[in-house]
Amino acid sequence: MTAPVASRVGRLLLVPNALDQGSADDVTSSGAALHLALPMAVLQTAAALEYWVTETPKVARVFLKRVNAVTPLVRPLQELVIAELPRPRKGGASRGTTGADAGVSAQQWAQLLEPTRQGHDVGLLSDAGLPAVADPGAELVRAAHLAGIEVVPLAGPSALLLALAASGLNGQSFAFVGYLPVEAGERAKRLQELEAISRRARQTQLFIETPYRNSAMLDTLLASLAPQTSLSVSCGLTTPQGWTRTATVAGWRKQSVVMPNDLPAVFALLA
Amino acid sequence: MTAPVASRVGRLLLVPNALDQGSADDVTSSGAALHLALPMAVLQTAAALEYWVTETPKVARVFLKRVNAVTPLVRPLQELVIAELPRPRKGGASRGTTGADAGVSAQQWAQLLEPTRQGHDVGLLSDAGLPAVADPGAELVRAAHLAGIEVVPLAGPSALLLALAASGLNGQSFAFVGYLPVEAGERAKRLQELEAISRRARQTQLFIETPYRNSAMLDTLLASLAPQTSLSVSCGLTTPQGWTRTATVAGWRKQSVVMPNDLPAVFALLA
Repeated sequence: MTAPVASRVGRLLLVPNALDQGSADDVTSSGAALHLALPMAVLQTAAALEYWVTETPKVARVFLKRVNAVTPLVRPLQELVIAELPRPRKGGASRGTTGADAGVSAQQWAQLLEPTRQGHDVGLLSDAGLPAVADPGAELVRAAHLAGIEVVPLAGPSALLLALAASGLNGQSFAFVGYLPVEAGERAKRLQELEAISRRARQTQLFIETPYRNSAMLDTLLASLAPQTSLSVSCGLTTPQGWTRTATVAGWRKQSVVMPNDLPAVFALLA
Repeated sequence: MTAPVASRVGRLLLVPNALDQGSADDVTSSGAALHLALPMAVLQTAAALEYWVTETPKVARVFLKRVNAVTPLVRPLQELVIAELPRPRKGGASRGTTGADAGVSAQQWAQLLEPTRQGHDVGLLSDAGLPAVADPGAELVRAAHLAGIEVVPLAGPSALLLALAASGLNGQSFAFVGYLPVEAGERAKRLQELEAISRRARQTQLFIETPYRNSAMLDTLLASLAPQTSLSVSCGLTTPQGWTRTATVAGWRKQSVVMPNDLPAVFALLA
């Protein structure tokens, strides 16, 4: 599939990562083998790719070592071309438009996609879960569409939707809004806004936080939200430590929960 | 894992289905084997379950036959207990609250979860993708939380998030709003509303349609949306016929696309 063929244009493949990848220091300590977390076809396709664009090359190499432990890579890891995605600002207004990330030119995106012109597929990989969803990568996908390059998402899990499914909150209408403002006043204001939207549109509102602030986030939620609002928290889904809890805010206040500061969490509310 | 143990309470496992399941008439004609679409650990866990609550028992049996072809079921298919989820109204305001579906009592949910009291895990399965997301099941999950039953989502793909990833539109803020109104005037009004929300909040808006109306939906979108609004359409993702196209509405108008009337589609816009 990756051999250069003059008449063939390569594709941009969106390769899902496991959800525990970020915390895996090396391939041997990573616990579950990757074929337990991802479909075999995804691993086989990933193993055949020679060109990668990745959120963090170091994390991508861990992923590829894990792939290699299940199905051999087409070339030794050192011979693969592993580029780094230009970083958007964390929590910033990344809008899926090429112009949204100041300093990333159309030419840079084109260079990252250049192997497709020689008939090679290019893999896009983030540090955990699906690329381009609550993760960088959308601008590269956008550039691929603009250039007429076929974009193919490979089947893999998203922590956001697993959390939503496990919440029992409305899965027929929901929104993910990324990170909330860090400053206390702005955060409380934003939460009231989300609660109002949720109430008006009957829409579950999902958001995330950096793990070391999980505990502070829960405190803010319990202090700011209405007692009858439903709140769901999921931590470390798909790992052995994973859990989901859903209750009203009043219910959460009655029974305190210790939030881990080293597992990714997804928060969801339905007013 | 499923043997009755007096001291153990069973869990509610959210089991992902493949995304091609709905159109698979039988296990032999279904093309790709299930282990190519789902992680092996998910199939092994599913194979060990004796109690199921499913969107459509007939479709669930096809799924279980496909599982059995990869890893043997704990009991013959005929001996498994496969219950049917009470059906919410299609496109209705299913809100993840037990009261939202008229006619489904708390007692009915409790009966479906009864095996957990004997220490059995119960699997929740929809006809495609993740249960309880753009699919029935949220009320059962909600009932499980209320009863203190552990809810565990197993890793699997969601067509919505694969479509979002492949769209190149904003993956840092997005909303899924289900089905649009069918009546032409109401549909156009709703689209203008979604376009306004998208513009104001920089939020990608996703929605779905029943396959036989795909073509009419695309016509309406091209007639109603602003020329500079970005529109992405994904059809049949994870199947060999799958494709994703993203362009401005003006771009779509220039190059017509024939929508299949037998593949599920996801529509996304960013104004």
